[in-house]
Amino acid sequence: MTEKSKFLLSEEDIPKTWYNIQADLGFDLPPLLHPETKEPTILPPPLFCAALNEQEFSKEREIEIPKPVRDIYRMYRPSPLIRARRLEKALDTPAHIYYKYEGGSPSGSHKPNTAIAQAFYAKEAGLKRLATETGAGQWGSALAFACKLLGLECKVFMVRVSYNQKPYRRVMMETWGAEVVESPNASTPMGAAFLEQDPDHPGSLGVAISEAVFTAGTNDDTNYALGSVLNHVLMHQTVIGLETQKQFEMADEYPDILIASIGGGSNFSGFVFPFMREKIVDGRDIRIIAVEPTASPSLTRGIYAFDYGDTAQAAPIAKMFTLGHTFIPAPIHAGGLRYHGMAPIVAALYDKGLIEATAESQLPVFKAAVQFAQTEGVIPAPETAHAVKVAIDEALKAKEEGVSKVIAFNFSGHGLLDLAAYDAYNQGSLEDYALPEESIKAAMAILPEVPTEYAAA
Amino acid sequence: MTEKSKFLLSEEDIPKTWYNIQADLGFDLPPLLHPETKEPTILPPPLFCAALNEQEFSKEREIEIPKPVRDIYRMYRPSPLIRARRLEKALDTPAHIYYKYEGGSPSGSHKPNTAIAQAFYAKEAGLKRLATETGAGQWGSALAFACKLLGLECKVFMVRVSYNQKPYRRVMMETWGAEVVESPNASTPMGAAFLEQDPDHPGSLGVAISEAVFTAGTNDDTNYALGSVLNHVLMHQTVIGLETQKQFEMADEYPDILIASIGGGSNFSGFVFPFMREKIVDGRDIRIIAVEPTASPSLTRGIYAFDYGDTAQAAPIAKMFTLGHTFIPAPIHAGGLRYHGMAPIVAALYDKGLIEATAESQLPVFKAAVQFAQTEGVIPAPETAHAVKVAIDEALKAKEEGVSKVIAFNFSGHGLLDLAAYDAYNQGSLEDYALPEESIKAAMAILPEVPTEYAAA
Repeated sequence: MTEKSKFLLSEEDIPKTWYNIQADLGFDLPPLLHPETKEPTILPPPLFCAALNEQEFSKEREIEIPKPVRDIYRMYRPSPLIRARRLEKALDTPAHIYYKYEGGSPSGSHKPNTAIAQAFYAKEAGLKRLATETGAGQWGSALAFACKLLGLECKVFMVRVSYNQKPYRRVMMETWGAEVVESPNASTPMGAAFLEQDPDHPGSLGVAISEAVFTAGTNDDTNYALGSVLNHVLMHQTVIGLETQKQFEMADEYPDILIASIGGGSNFSGFVFPFMREKIVDGRDIRIIAVEPTASPSLTRGIYAFDYGDTAQAAPIAKMFTLGHTFIPAPIHAGGLRYHGMAPIVAALYDKGLIEATAESQLPVFKAAVQFAQTEGVIPAPETAHAVKVAIDEALKAKEEGVSKVIAFNFSGHGLLDLAAYDAYNQGSLEDYALPEESIKAAMAILPEVPTEYAAA
Repeated sequence: MTEKSKFLLSEEDIPKTWYNIQADLGFDLPPLLHPETKEPTILPPPLFCAALNEQEFSKEREIEIPKPVRDIYRMYRPSPLIRARRLEKALDTPAHIYYKYEGGSPSGSHKPNTAIAQAFYAKEAGLKRLATETGAGQWGSALAFACKLLGLECKVFMVRVSYNQKPYRRVMMETWGAEVVESPNASTPMGAAFLEQDPDHPGSLGVAISEAVFTAGTNDDTNYALGSVLNHVLMHQTVIGLETQKQFEMADEYPDILIASIGGGSNFSGFVFPFMREKIVDGRDIRIIAVEPTASPSLTRGIYAFDYGDTAQAAPIAKMFTLGHTFIPAPIHAGGLRYHGMAPIVAALYDKGLIEATAESQLPVFKAAVQFAQTEGVIPAPETAHAVKVAIDEALKAKEEGVSKVIAFNFSGHGLLDLAAYDAYNQGSLEDYALPEESIKAAMAILPEVPTEYAAA
């Protein structure tokens, strides 16, 4: 235990530019289609300011991070890269396990990396308010924090199952001055309709997106902010991977395997895209694994097709791996992973075989999380625990095979506001859910039809 | 916002020795007296191992930190010193406000600094288990974490009011493998007696200490661990102030005012003792302020007298500022500050006029905490918020007086597991409590009589 375990950068090492993987893909992404006309579209201008729209479609490799954004990043960045020596010892593995710790931000996850940027551009564009949805609450609390620092109002539609499971997340958002309501919510037409169908509707990210989009679309002073999926959101997160690259140089190692949990794709993309460049451009041999929940297995069980980004068909249509926009995942505690679709860039990378994907179910995920907490001290968010599970599996595989591997995962957030889930696990009352075969089949049967020329894209 | 805000040290800068202020006090502390014989005593050997007893009475200035302890410190130390530039700006003050951020440890407070040391020495001494009490849960979770890492069992008596207000703290302890029970608890004779008197007894640190002490005293394989008050505990916390001194050198400043919240005295002492040495030995001009809650105002309303450390009169008698060992503070959310007494060293320093003290009530404390959260991002624990309140007051005073002061406070822990209290504050339902004049008077009427030769000490 004499060698370093923490690889720390100084404030000057915070990246000055985001990395835009669109410059290096070597192929064009399928177009984004308008939800009604089904013709190519930009992000709807009533919802997104011009600066973010420009980033969404840019092919510039490096996009400058505005100084005010970097100044707020300095409140919690650079984040440490940590070698999990106590976990390695407990597993008795020859593998080296590293984790990039994004749990140190004020809201406790990687989400502020894009929330701050989005709030900055909205403020610059003269807006007064941002509206958004949140699943587990990680995104909503990050946006509440960012809006407060940048002098914007914030309205959050919180998926009902999380609103009830995670009251502390709501309190956190309110403490930062945000207005938080349950979704589905009777104050929007789509929320009212969903509640009429089912008064006990558990909500989903797809539904909550519809409600936040409606709110932004019907208020001139309000824009919409999305915490994942879109190209510019993934790009803002690349500060994670850019820092990690420098830190691996400090550690004098290079990762054989990169692992991150995946819902919409933001923590995964932010962590792996800078390495993906080294894989695509420099031909580096590196395995990249996305870990999704079995309750919402868009990569491993979905199909690569055009689908709406939200349940109420108000958001644009994108080509992605999807379970169908009407699919409502089981109420697992990893609320941030309960999304029917997948970021278009991640979907394209998966389609081309550049990344791997695996699905894990709730109980073994929590078992891994507790092992991590009992060795490394830190308690992971249920989302993050998906990556922990696969990192442990890969470390045990390396042990079996007698090979030393360098395994790195993104510790996207801590689980201090998810302790109700740990309580259920500790008491033995946490449930696993059967794979929802029937509801996937039903949801996939009603994907939108799009013009043939795009369908072939 | 171009200058540095975070002053970071590297793992090599973790102190190699603790600072023992007993070497520099220039006076002898009054003796510790046996609860029954009322004659001088060491810490009861059935409760404390020899190594800790030696530290308790040592006059060595520097005591080596064992390497395994430093190796665990490296999981979260050194902690950053942060300049609160956004708070300064919001207050429009010429003062410079710094905070030492102890919220980054796995359990979220400064408490692991001594928990790890105590667990290490207990393991070395061949013990199997540690028993303790916890108020807000910060100490219990720190000890649960430390015991798990060092291979010990851990049993925690949690003050009932916190057990109910802060279920997440219990879950955290259980996730690290500890056994957690409510105090008063029918499983101990004193717990049973208190419950018979009052089935709704809210508990207090004094009662919970009695129960943990009983458990350790009646089990050969179990020692007792205390999270504050005792000399060795305060000493383990001096890593905080020792790091802060180095960080002020980096910042090229020197504090005019040091502020910390105070209950038993551990975060206060750990932060200020290394500076107190500079005040006593080098004659530096520095104000040192302890902030206690009005609900438990031992320094500002208690008397300097010999009293039992616990409610059931099972712990030794120490000379301290006390409200009387039977005093039960109102159920404020800063559960970690609900103690009737005060660390003997802190009491002696206050008696000699070397430190100041002030008492703050719950509502203005939470107001300050929310202002801090909305500017600096981080949400403080209710205990920590007491220090925030006075730091803001001093910064505003500096503004009024038109003088630039360097103000530093110890950010002893984050409030992510205290969000129920913030919810009450945000909803306007948080209560303030009147100063408990009558119950203080009643409790102070029954202090123990001790032999005259010691009473004069």
